[in-house]
Amino acid sequence: MDQEGEALQEELLKAIRETGVRVIGPNTSGHTSTPYNFTSSFFPLGKIPRGNISYIAQTGNFATHTMRYIITGENFGVARVVGLGNKVDMDESEVLEYYADDPETKAIFVYLESFKRPKRFLETARKVTRTKPIIFLKGGSTSQGARAAVAHTAALASADQIIDGALKQAGITRVYKYSHLFLTAKALSLMPLPRGNRVSFMAPSGAMLVIMTDLCHQRWGLEVPNLEESTRQRLQEISPPYIRMRNPVDIWPSASVHGIEYAYREGMEAVLKDSNIDAVVPILMLTKETGIPSLDFIVELARKYPEKPVYVTFSGDKEHMEAAKAYLEPKGVPTFPLIEEPFEILSVLAQCRKALI
Amino acid sequence: MDQEGEALQEELLKAIRETGVRVIGPNTSGHTSTPYNFTSSFFPLGKIPRGNISYIAQTGNFATHTMRYIITGENFGVARVVGLGNKVDMDESEVLEYYADDPETKAIFVYLESFKRPKRFLETARKVTRTKPIIFLKGGSTSQGARAAVAHTAALASADQIIDGALKQAGITRVYKYSHLFLTAKALSLMPLPRGNRVSFMAPSGAMLVIMTDLCHQRWGLEVPNLEESTRQRLQEISPPYIRMRNPVDIWPSASVHGIEYAYREGMEAVLKDSNIDAVVPILMLTKETGIPSLDFIVELARKYPEKPVYVTFSGDKEHMEAAKAYLEPKGVPTFPLIEEPFEILSVLAQCRKALI
Repeated sequence: MDQEGEALQEELLKAIRETGVRVIGPNTSGHTSTPYNFTSSFFPLGKIPRGNISYIAQTGNFATHTMRYIITGENFGVARVVGLGNKVDMDESEVLEYYADDPETKAIFVYLESFKRPKRFLETARKVTRTKPIIFLKGGSTSQGARAAVAHTAALASADQIIDGALKQAGITRVYKYSHLFLTAKALSLMPLPRGNRVSFMAPSGAMLVIMTDLCHQRWGLEVPNLEESTRQRLQEISPPYIRMRNPVDIWPSASVHGIEYAYREGMEAVLKDSNIDAVVPILMLTKETGIPSLDFIVELARKYPEKPVYVTFSGDKEHMEAAKAYLEPKGVPTFPLIEEPFEILSVLAQCRKALI
Repeated sequence: MDQEGEALQEELLKAIRETGVRVIGPNTSGHTSTPYNFTSSFFPLGKIPRGNISYIAQTGNFATHTMRYIITGENFGVARVVGLGNKVDMDESEVLEYYADDPETKAIFVYLESFKRPKRFLETARKVTRTKPIIFLKGGSTSQGARAAVAHTAALASADQIIDGALKQAGITRVYKYSHLFLTAKALSLMPLPRGNRVSFMAPSGAMLVIMTDLCHQRWGLEVPNLEESTRQRLQEISPPYIRMRNPVDIWPSASVHGIEYAYREGMEAVLKDSNIDAVVPILMLTKETGIPSLDFIVELARKYPEKPVYVTFSGDKEHMEAAKAYLEPKGVPTFPLIEEPFEILSVLAQCRKALI
């Protein structure tokens, strides 16, 4: 902030060089390593659930309030979290190198406002992304945002295109929303990466089928492909004859005849078996009047087809949506309150997949 | 679906013409008019809260499960809802004409997969949008989506650009997400339209300030303008001297010295008074350890500055976020669980504003 601070930081740097001790920060809320039951965060987080997601963040949020949201609102755990702070000694490249070889880390989420050693970071990333996804949010990618970051340079807005190209070459998947740092993490933590961008989904509403299909093609780079003929026949078998079944799956006619559980279970299994499909999104209708099904079948199907991600979303009564989330996520099935969210996340993960060997 | 159905519908149409009775549907889950305590929905919705939002929908969802979500999950009411169904008699244009003169209707939300009389609809819309916003979601805007709508024509994808231009000329604001049909409605129902696209927001995190500023400029067509000097001075007064205050507002230094309630209250009032600002988004940090403030001050500020919308979002413990939502929304302040949502909604509403006289 001022000359006194600068002088203090210089003194710190001198001590680091003299002692050889490695230092994260200063100006950081700390770091966390759940496999070692360790945290240096000054924020009283309580028990941080152990998991396979690791963060590199040029912000303290993942050691403070965002971690609190992850713990209380989303149901996944983390392996390592480093808040970089002013990066006088340790920087993002060294942390990335550590995560690269870390058996506890399955996927790496990065928030940076600046690179200390961009070349080294990108070279490491190019190797890492062959086996572990790197999801990256760049802060200050506009001159206005950079001003907010107090990291203003006049050249920054155009430099963002260069950064964009470099990230792509390194196989890094860029996201733009803060929320995607934890929603994508939840999806990746609980489910495998989709093998591609071909999605099947089922809804109790024709309008939802239409709108989500539009968005898959227009915005999200996802395909809603034709099903194999045997799949189509199976869907037809479980449905009343007046409707011609296809992908996306209009599930309500079947549910109204055979019950919600049967219709969604048989419909989901049919498309999970289909070799044209990489991921499945059931949009569950949950209202008291139409009946709240037991959701065990979703957990069972997710376990039976472990190579295909299943993301659940909803329409209906909020209380039952919350109950379904509280039931499914601890059993390994991620849920998303708004119907667009699982598709946005699939769109990100289909990009991650492309970078893998 | 088949010849028998077609014949039945022909017979129905004949009865309509002979009797002069006006008919909505068939193939609709009904219509609702809360000022008359009336609904023809076959779905047991319970009490539908009365409000100022009206829907025209080529889907039954707003008389069934989506209405259930609105009732149980969002806290706003509706005036009229019409599910158009097959439109053998009444169509979207006549419903729009009714809403145009309806004193109960403040804003109109439309979901259509096809126009029956596009010219009449657009001519009416052109007049309506001078006084009431029309928010429009078009289903089947891609050939894939249209196929899902069983309304396939090969020319449809290119025709969408023509629709887009026509909607713009009529002052209609287009949305693309299904969720925006109720999230935008909630914002509009509880708050005034913003006078423009200039937003101020405050967060407990520099990273959130940076990312939201990037997105405002890159994606959402929102400005994060400089504040008036007197506003800046006021923000500086309530903050420790080491931080230079500006828009967006880094609120945590002040909160850590003066408490959360004081910092957010004084910070919000300063920017609400500022003539450069059209809307205010506080990102509230709610964790047990940092203290949960009483939120009365937000309700009071929203009432004191009734011409400027206030949308609340959060970071921290989910349980406190839910409690804040349950407290604020019935008192007229809309909340959004993910920090991007209020900005996405503001982006839609700033477009609506442009169409008004």
